[in-house]
Amino acid sequence: MDKNSAGKQVSLEEVFNPRGVAVVGVSAPTTSGGFSFGGLVVLSLIRAGFPAIYPINPKYSEILGIPCYPNLLAVPGPVDHVVVNIPAESCLALLDECAVKGVRSVHFFTAGFGESGDEDRAALEQAMLNKARANGFRIIGPNCIGLFVPRRRVANSIDVPLDPGPVAFMTQSGGHAQILPKSSGPRGIRFSKVVSYGNALDVNECELLEYFARDDETEIIAAYVEGVRDGEGFARALATAARRKPVIVYKGGKTEAGQRAALGHTASMTSSIAVFEALCRQTNAIQVDHLDEMIDTLTALRFAQPLPAGTGAAMIGAGGGPAVLGSDELERAGLSVPRLSREVQDELKRHLPIAGSIFTNPVDTLNLIDPRAIDVALRTVGSSPDIHMLVYHLGFHPIGSWGMGRFSTPAFLEPVTAVIRAAREAVGKPVLIALRPPEDLEGMKEFLAAQEAFVAAGLPVFHSLRGLAGAMSRVAEWKRRKNRTTSIPS
Amino acid sequence: MDKNSAGKQVSLEEVFNPRGVAVVGVSAPTTSGGFSFGGLVVLSLIRAGFPAIYPINPKYSEILGIPCYPNLLAVPGPVDHVVVNIPAESCLALLDECAVKGVRSVHFFTAGFGESGDEDRAALEQAMLNKARANGFRIIGPNCIGLFVPRRRVANSIDVPLDPGPVAFMTQSGGHAQILPKSSGPRGIRFSKVVSYGNALDVNECELLEYFARDDETEIIAAYVEGVRDGEGFARALATAARRKPVIVYKGGKTEAGQRAALGHTASMTSSIAVFEALCRQTNAIQVDHLDEMIDTLTALRFAQPLPAGTGAAMIGAGGGPAVLGSDELERAGLSVPRLSREVQDELKRHLPIAGSIFTNPVDTLNLIDPRAIDVALRTVGSSPDIHMLVYHLGFHPIGSWGMGRFSTPAFLEPVTAVIRAAREAVGKPVLIALRPPEDLEGMKEFLAAQEAFVAAGLPVFHSLRGLAGAMSRVAEWKRRKNRTTSIPS
Repeated sequence: MDKNSAGKQVSLEEVFNPRGVAVVGVSAPTTSGGFSFGGLVVLSLIRAGFPAIYPINPKYSEILGIPCYPNLLAVPGPVDHVVVNIPAESCLALLDECAVKGVRSVHFFTAGFGESGDEDRAALEQAMLNKARANGFRIIGPNCIGLFVPRRRVANSIDVPLDPGPVAFMTQSGGHAQILPKSSGPRGIRFSKVVSYGNALDVNECELLEYFARDDETEIIAAYVEGVRDGEGFARALATAARRKPVIVYKGGKTEAGQRAALGHTASMTSSIAVFEALCRQTNAIQVDHLDEMIDTLTALRFAQPLPAGTGAAMIGAGGGPAVLGSDELERAGLSVPRLSREVQDELKRHLPIAGSIFTNPVDTLNLIDPRAIDVALRTVGSSPDIHMLVYHLGFHPIGSWGMGRFSTPAFLEPVTAVIRAAREAVGKPVLIALRPPEDLEGMKEFLAAQEAFVAAGLPVFHSLRGLAGAMSRVAEWKRRKNRTTSIPS
Repeated sequence: MDKNSAGKQVSLEEVFNPRGVAVVGVSAPTTSGGFSFGGLVVLSLIRAGFPAIYPINPKYSEILGIPCYPNLLAVPGPVDHVVVNIPAESCLALLDECAVKGVRSVHFFTAGFGESGDEDRAALEQAMLNKARANGFRIIGPNCIGLFVPRRRVANSIDVPLDPGPVAFMTQSGGHAQILPKSSGPRGIRFSKVVSYGNALDVNECELLEYFARDDETEIIAAYVEGVRDGEGFARALATAARRKPVIVYKGGKTEAGQRAALGHTASMTSSIAVFEALCRQTNAIQVDHLDEMIDTLTALRFAQPLPAGTGAAMIGAGGGPAVLGSDELERAGLSVPRLSREVQDELKRHLPIAGSIFTNPVDTLNLIDPRAIDVALRTVGSSPDIHMLVYHLGFHPIGSWGMGRFSTPAFLEPVTAVIRAAREAVGKPVLIALRPPEDLEGMKEFLAAQEAFVAAGLPVFHSLRGLAGAMSRVAEWKRRKNRTTSIPS
C-alpha cells in the first residue's frame, strides 16, 4: 500500500522535480472571473506548460479545458506532488489517499492549524505530520502557497516571469512568495526556486537553507523567516549557506506587534531579535527589514557589477533639489559622498555648463540627460580613487521628467544605456540607475520603457535613493567582511 | 521715473496679487515640443486663465497665440510682476527698465549668481539687490521658479491642480516647488501660495513665514529650507508661525554631502543641525526629512480627521505577510499597535472567518475586501479605548490585488468608502487608507481609480505603511505638545 515507506525520506530535490501534480479542492472560475487558489494553481501550471496536471473534484469532468478526476486514485499517471485546498477537517483523510497513490510531497494551502491558536487544530497538524512520516512523504506548509520552480514549469501564480534565474527564495509568507517574483521581475531578477513553507510543519528553514547552499541552480539565497524552531540547527545551516553564497535574511516580527502578527500568521514564536541579529553578523548573512529592501539588495548583488570596493558614491544627474535630498539620503543610509578633487571639478567644468550647476559631488547640471554630458560626467568622476560607485538618477527632476515622452524613446535610451555601459567598463566601477516611479499613467508608461531598457542593458535599477543607498551599503559591508574572512585561513 | 521709490517697501500681499505679468527671455516652443522656462510660464499662465500676460522678446510678434513685446516699456498695461530668464550678465540692465516701468516684483529664474562660488557673480547679485531696494521693488530668487498663486491664476507649471486650498509652501528648491503640488494633488492637497525663492537675495524665509502666519488663505505652512541667514529672526518667525498654524519644516542639507550640495544649489550655508532640530522642538514645528514625508504629513494634517488623541493604531486588511510587515513598520515609525482585548477579538470572530485569520491586531481576514466585513472590523476595533486610529490597507496582498479589475469598480468603491466614512463618524477616530502603488500599467489604472474615490470621500491616502506611520506619529506628537502648550496660560 505504501510505496515510499522504505525508511528513505523524500529529498527536496525530488520535491522540486515532480512528474505529475494533482490539485485537490479546485473549482471552476466564478462568474466574476475570480479563482479559488486551486483554480489559480491549475491555470498557473497550464500557462507555465507543466505537462501532467490533474485537477481533482468529483463535481467536474473538466476544469479550464483539462480533464478533472473524482479523486487522487482515479488519476492515470504518477502523482508526485499534491496541492491541497480543502477544509482542515478533511486533510487527514486525504493523506491516506496520498499514501496509497505513493506521492512524494503534499502542499497544504489550507490554513487554520497551529496558527489559529486552537489546541485541537495544533493536534490535527501533528497527526498529519505523523502520517506523512509513517508513509515517507513530505509536507509543505500548511498555510502557504507552496512551490514555484520555473525550470521544471511548476508554478503557483500568474503574472510572474517564468524564465529561470539564480535566486532562491524561501518564505513563510505566501503573499511575499507572490510579491517578490512579481515586483522584482521588471528589475531583472529571476528565480531558481521559490518555496512558500508557511507553518513549517515538516519542510522547514534549516532543510531549505542547507539544500539551497548546495543547489547548483542557486547563486543567491533570499529568506523571509518569521520563526525558527531549532535555533542551533538554524545557526549551523545559516553559517554553511552564507559561507558558500550571499544569503539575504528578512526576519518578520521584530517588534512586539509584528511578533504577535507572526504568531497568528504562521504560528511562529519569534526568537530574541538581538540573538538573531548577532547570528547574522557572525555568519555574514545580509539582513533586511522590508521586502523592498530585499528586492534592492538582490538587484545590487546581481547587477551592481563589479561589486564596489568601498562605500564612496558619486551622484550624477539633473536637478538641485534631488541633489541635496539625494546626498542626504545616501549619507544617512551608510554610503559616503566624498567631495571631488579640484582637478576633477575643473575637468567637469571644461565640458559641462556652469550656471545653475553643482560640481563638488553631487554633480548636477541641467544637461545631464544628454548622452555626451553623461559620458563625460561618469568617466571623469569615475576616475576618482575614493569613488567606488556611480549613481545616475533620472525622473527625480520635474522639468522634462516622466510623462513628457522624452525619456522613453530609443533616440534617448539607446545612446544613454550605451554610454553608461561603456563608462562602467572604462572605470571598472558599478553604475547604478535611480529611477523614481511616477504615479500617473503617462509617466508610468515612460518609466516602464526606460526601466526595461536599463535592465535589458544589465544595469541595476533602483526606485529610490534611500533604497539604493541601503542596498549598496549592505552589499559593500558584506563584501568587506567576506574578503576579510576568506583572506584568513581557517 | 521711479514710481515706487517713496520709501515704502512693496508687501508680499502685493507681490502675490499682480495685475499684469511680463515674461522676459521667452522663446517659441522648440520643434521637439520642448519649452524654455519662459515659454513654460507663459503657457502656464494661459492655462490658469491669468488675464494680463506679456511675453517679452524683440524677435517675435506673438508667442503661443498672444502678443509678444520688444521690451518692458512697450507693454501697454501695468506690469506688477516680471519673470526673468535671461543670462546673468544682462540682469542688472533689465532692472533699470523695471524701475522705469514701475514694477512691484522681479522673479529671476536665471541662475549662476552667489551659488556659483564666483566672487564677481556674488557682487552682481548684491548690485541687483541694491538697485531693487533703491527703486522700491522686490526680488524673488534668483535661481528659482517663483510664484504659484492658484486663487490669482498665477502659475509657473503645467499639470498641477489649479484650484486653491489651505496649504502654503515656501521652498528654496524650484524642483520641489513643482513636485509637491504635482505629487500631492492626487492625495487631495491644494495650495494657497507656493513660493520658490532660491538664493533668498531679498524675499527670504523669515518674511515668508511671517506672512503665511497671518495669511487668512493659509491654514498649514510647509517649508523647504536649505539655509537660514538670520538665525534669530528665523527662530522668532518660526515661533510666531507655529503658534498660529501647523508648520512642517524640511531642512535640506543635513549631512555633510547634503550641505555641500545646498551651498552649490542655492548658496546656502546650512546651520548646525542640532540647533535647528532643537529650535523645531522648542517651537513645535513638525520636522520631516524627505519630500515624501512632507506629503504624508500634509495628508495626515488635512484628512486624518479628527486628529488622533494618541499613537495607538489598529491595522485592518487582507494578507498575513502585510500584517507582519505592517505591524513592524508601524511600531518602528513611532506608533503603537496594542493587542486587542479578548472581548473585541471574540466579537470579531463572531462575524469574520476564522481559518487563516489574525485577530489580535493586526486584524487579517481574507474577506476584508467585503464592505460588510470592513464595516464590522472598523466599528468593533474602533471601540477599543487604546486604539486612536484605524488603518485600512488595500493592494498590499497579491491575491486579487491591483490590476485584476476588482478594486476600481463603483460596485466595490462606493460601498467601501461609504462604510469607512460611516465607521469614522460612529467611532470618532480617523480612518487612514494605505494603498501600495503598483508598478505596472493595469495596476496603476486601478490604483488611481481607487485613490480618486478614497480622496473624493475626504479620506487620507498613504502609499506606504512606513510613510503613514511616520506622518501619524509626527502629527500625534505635534497635537500632544500643542495641547500641553495651550493649556498653560502664558
